[in-house]
Amino acid sequence: MHVVVNAAISIDGKLSTRRREQIAISGERDFERVGELRADSDAILVGIGTVLADDPHLVIDESHRKRRQNQGIPPTPHRIIIDSRARTPTDAEVLDDEAPTYIIVSESAPTSRQADLEVEGANVIVAGRERVSMPAAISALADSGIDSVMVEGGGEIIFSLFDADLVDELSVYVGSLLIGGRDAPTLADGDGFVDDPTRLQLTSVRQIDDGVLLQYDVEATTSTYDSIDWDE
Amino acid sequence: MHVVVNAAISIDGKLSTRRREQIAISGERDFERVGELRADSDAILVGIGTVLADDPHLVIDESHRKRRQNQGIPPTPHRIIIDSRARTPTDAEVLDDEAPTYIIVSESAPTSRQADLEVEGANVIVAGRERVSMPAAISALADSGIDSVMVEGGGEIIFSLFDADLVDELSVYVGSLLIGGRDAPTLADGDGFVDDPTRLQLTSVRQIDDGVLLQYDVEATTSTYDSIDWDE
Repeated sequence: MHVVVNAAISIDGKLSTRRREQIAISGERDFERVGELRADSDAILVGIGTVLADDPHLVIDESHRKRRQNQGIPPTPHRIIIDSRARTPTDAEVLDDEAPTYIIVSESAPTSRQADLEVEGANVIVAGRERVSMPAAISALADSGIDSVMVEGGGEIIFSLFDADLVDELSVYVGSLLIGGRDAPTLADGDGFVDDPTRLQLTSVRQIDDGVLLQYDVEATTSTYDSIDWDE
Repeated sequence: MHVVVNAAISIDGKLSTRRREQIAISGERDFERVGELRADSDAILVGIGTVLADDPHLVIDESHRKRRQNQGIPPTPHRIIIDSRARTPTDAEVLDDEAPTYIIVSESAPTSRQADLEVEGANVIVAGRERVSMPAAISALADSGIDSVMVEGGGEIIFSLFDADLVDELSVYVGSLLIGGRDAPTLADGDGFVDDPTRLQLTSVRQIDDGVLLQYDVEATTSTYDSIDWDE
């Protein structure tokens, strides 16, 4: 499984304002790049926080769908929501019929909510007890035939994936603006690393629109995917 | 008055871990660049949070001192601490006699603490009621003959300066690491902007050590220095 994290931040690392309202960070050329990246992935993954804040659609445009069909692969990437307590609204954009949707929940998710989501067409997968276990989630997706995932946020999910050593590549568009705010969401939230930050290898620096795209490989650590406790 | 903010962050915008412990973000070549920038400034400014967390010395090396003396200017830049309640410890490194030190406090600072700091040789300036007023502080420094200030953090001070439209340039070294943490200090904390982030103009992109130095001019806004209420 190949996991790419892609996000756009302000120079101070924020994904949005403290009100979680989206703000223009990147421009037209970067949107196109993100569209290509989505179209090259088997699945697009976001956390429930992003679904509740932005109600994203997570689909690709018609030209990319045709290209995928010509390649003999499903026209759209799968949509994946990490949603420990099954809080995805039944009228969320990701529950329309434009692409298959997996919702990964934990054992703590109310079964009635899981049933509601299945009625809306979602494939509900249980992975983890109180919260979704990222290694278990990624493993379940791999078992479903998904070989590559593009992660679009938010900061809690991104930190969880780094914390579990599951990220292979990181692409960050740094927009030319400063948002500020000790409570604004950042690229990587969660508890954060204390002694041992994740070291990255800078692979590319490109000016796009009026900002910069920085791309990294994640350096291998001693801990590996297989060694993680699957029961959290 | 020319105000330059300089800082080193992880790719997720963090200045340090959530424990406020310093972490290696940049390398030798960037340290040299920062040394040059310090030596080219009339003053180096930090907030009390940085003094309490890191106890920085804020001096420059011998070769830079000689160069300044040859130019007929004081051998070291002034050191400036923004310290609303006069909490700078009397044994802080910035209170040694290697360079003049200004401590900017508010009217809420205990006068006994102000006196303690003056005994240690600091020039105490009162600017603002409950908290230091940044426009008043910068104005007082300008009145003292300081024409250029390099701001080294932390995130609260940096946001306050942007919020008051006092920053001219921003230099950010983006280290190739991810720290994470919703409570870790970022380049710009404070309350944050909600509707109107500060727009920047990217002026330079340079790879240094294993990271990237991004430099920006701050775009002029409608609000100006003179229009700010000096009594907070």
